[in-house]
Amino acid sequence: MTIGIAGDGQLGRMMITAAKELGFDVVVLGTTENSPAGQYARQVMGDFRAEAPVLGLGDHADVITFEIEDAHAGALIALREKGIEVHPSPETLHNIKDKFRQKQLLAGAGIPVAAYRSVESSDDLISAAQEYGYPLVLKARLGSYDGRGNAAIKRADDIEPALDKLAGRGWYVEQHVPFVRELAVVAARDRKGNVATYPVVETRHVRHICDTVIAPAQVDGITARKANDLAVKVLDTLQGVGVFGIEMFETPDGQVLINEVAPRVHNSGHWTIEGAVTSQFEQHIRAVTGLPLGSTDLVKPAAVMINILGDRNGPAEPTGLHEALAIPGVSVHIYGKADTKVDRKMGHITAIGDTVDEALANAKRARQAITI
Amino acid sequence: MTIGIAGDGQLGRMMITAAKELGFDVVVLGTTENSPAGQYARQVMGDFRAEAPVLGLGDHADVITFEIEDAHAGALIALREKGIEVHPSPETLHNIKDKFRQKQLLAGAGIPVAAYRSVESSDDLISAAQEYGYPLVLKARLGSYDGRGNAAIKRADDIEPALDKLAGRGWYVEQHVPFVRELAVVAARDRKGNVATYPVVETRHVRHICDTVIAPAQVDGITARKANDLAVKVLDTLQGVGVFGIEMFETPDGQVLINEVAPRVHNSGHWTIEGAVTSQFEQHIRAVTGLPLGSTDLVKPAAVMINILGDRNGPAEPTGLHEALAIPGVSVHIYGKADTKVDRKMGHITAIGDTVDEALANAKRARQAITI
Repeated sequence: MTIGIAGDGQLGRMMITAAKELGFDVVVLGTTENSPAGQYARQVMGDFRAEAPVLGLGDHADVITFEIEDAHAGALIALREKGIEVHPSPETLHNIKDKFRQKQLLAGAGIPVAAYRSVESSDDLISAAQEYGYPLVLKARLGSYDGRGNAAIKRADDIEPALDKLAGRGWYVEQHVPFVRELAVVAARDRKGNVATYPVVETRHVRHICDTVIAPAQVDGITARKANDLAVKVLDTLQGVGVFGIEMFETPDGQVLINEVAPRVHNSGHWTIEGAVTSQFEQHIRAVTGLPLGSTDLVKPAAVMINILGDRNGPAEPTGLHEALAIPGVSVHIYGKADTKVDRKMGHITAIGDTVDEALANAKRARQAITI
Repeated sequence: MTIGIAGDGQLGRMMITAAKELGFDVVVLGTTENSPAGQYARQVMGDFRAEAPVLGLGDHADVITFEIEDAHAGALIALREKGIEVHPSPETLHNIKDKFRQKQLLAGAGIPVAAYRSVESSDDLISAAQEYGYPLVLKARLGSYDGRGNAAIKRADDIEPALDKLAGRGWYVEQHVPFVRELAVVAARDRKGNVATYPVVETRHVRHICDTVIAPAQVDGITARKANDLAVKVLDTLQGVGVFGIEMFETPDGQVLINEVAPRVHNSGHWTIEGAVTSQFEQHIRAVTGLPLGSTDLVKPAAVMINILGDRNGPAEPTGLHEALAIPGVSVHIYGKADTKVDRKMGHITAIGDTVDEALANAKRARQAITI
């Protein structure tokens, strides 16, 4: 069986090795020469956002999945009509990639989310400010990740610049949620509808980009159970097959709100490669190929992941590996991107250990050692 | 930095992903189209047993290593003289690949081995029988693995057939060692001479091929320490850089004897991918590239590996994955070989668990489910 992956980045790369070890053939679609994923599998050159290349991917694959929600939805529907398995389904993708629609679906299912409303013009933001108060968070409905779809509105003067920043992608606005922690649950749903969740983690962001993930999150048992149960409810609502990343806010009054859902393997689950019995990448491959889900248990009491973001622009040259790998329990993943850019995701570090404090300290030391 | 690997099989394959995740480029040498290793890295087509292809590999790589001891030793020496790092060193390879020479070196360093002597003709075997008694084990000095270099001699009539079976590869003979268990230690030596050993494991062979590996071996503490200390002594004696597989016999009177040493990652260490903090493959890459060695601790109390050997001849078609992956803690690795053959190593299963009994039972159930 051949798995086609729309996208040629690091998420595809990490899916590929999981898939190949299970005996599957893999072909990826993307435009990057010597891409992170293309270094491990055959690559069809083409834009996964365009219809024809995604249709073409169907000529090579029995099952299609994606590493990015921008994959052309119409083509995915056409492929499915031709009898090719597409997971998560085009409908699920459609319901998630428009974040306003996603929010409506979640709220409609009784899942707690931040107060929100649609935005067509500045008038809607003025009304929102009257109802929710400042600050507001303006969000793009489409094409947002790593904070690139958000604009903070702290006062009326910020309204026009925020609308300009996110113009052309549709808008909606949310009440700002003061949170004590950001949490995430990576969850998988197999073809029969079984759901498996990994332990809830804490995610820490720097400049709106995921920086550090702490597994398990150091929350009380009630909060952990709430987060887990919400994740299951989210997957039951969205119905897709595969791995999903579910971002949440833990509020000062002990509530857990769903922030956003990604219909794919997720940065908050990279720690599972070393830290869990089954990695999120293998879990996704199991789900989309009709295999049973694997154990989501941690193999050690704690795992901490820190992203390696580019700190300059130019050809990538990892340094500091020697120092980083001398730290116990540290694993390093470099994604094989030719060029580094400021804040580009170039790799990640995972430290596993007997306590979160130990793993966090070791991951931080390793991160400080590495430049790229 | 580019790592060149002589050999294109599953050991190379598992080294490649470890190397690439650390940011290294990899090129492999072998003659198999769409080989296990070539599915993950660039492949130079050529025979690693021949001089010219191995010399040619040097044009692509800064560090050369190998997954099989048959790599052309003269070419490796020439490459080193051109300033390319070769690990383990050609001298170490030379001392190990001739198993009689290996035995002499180990015995000379005071390391316990089975009684042995050189063999030039049947007369030597008749003398050996007088000295050691039957049964004897005739072994080929060169090119032996998976039992293909051994011939049992139970009585005088077996002498000529045994010599014929192993003709042309040099002979030596060993006293038969009655053992209670076969043990193995995978050990690594870095460029500075630091040695790290994985916990001693028990290996169980079927038809002279490694079938099951149990980590940790269920031996008493004294035996475990003996095995570990012997492994360190073996590496200090052989001096190479990289991972070595050290096979041992545990005798009824509580001795541990060294059986054979392989100058490479080893089937008895495959369990480390899921079962240890650092896999033997990453450990080897760390060692040969001058990085520090990683932790060899188990991540769970027990890990059991069972090989997936071909049970027929023909195109490979793995079946039973669904049933195998439904068993908790089970991971499956399929090596991507196009054709299966009886007793060919086609993949392996690892089960991790809280006890050896649990892991062994789960690994066996998974193995029974899979055919290829």
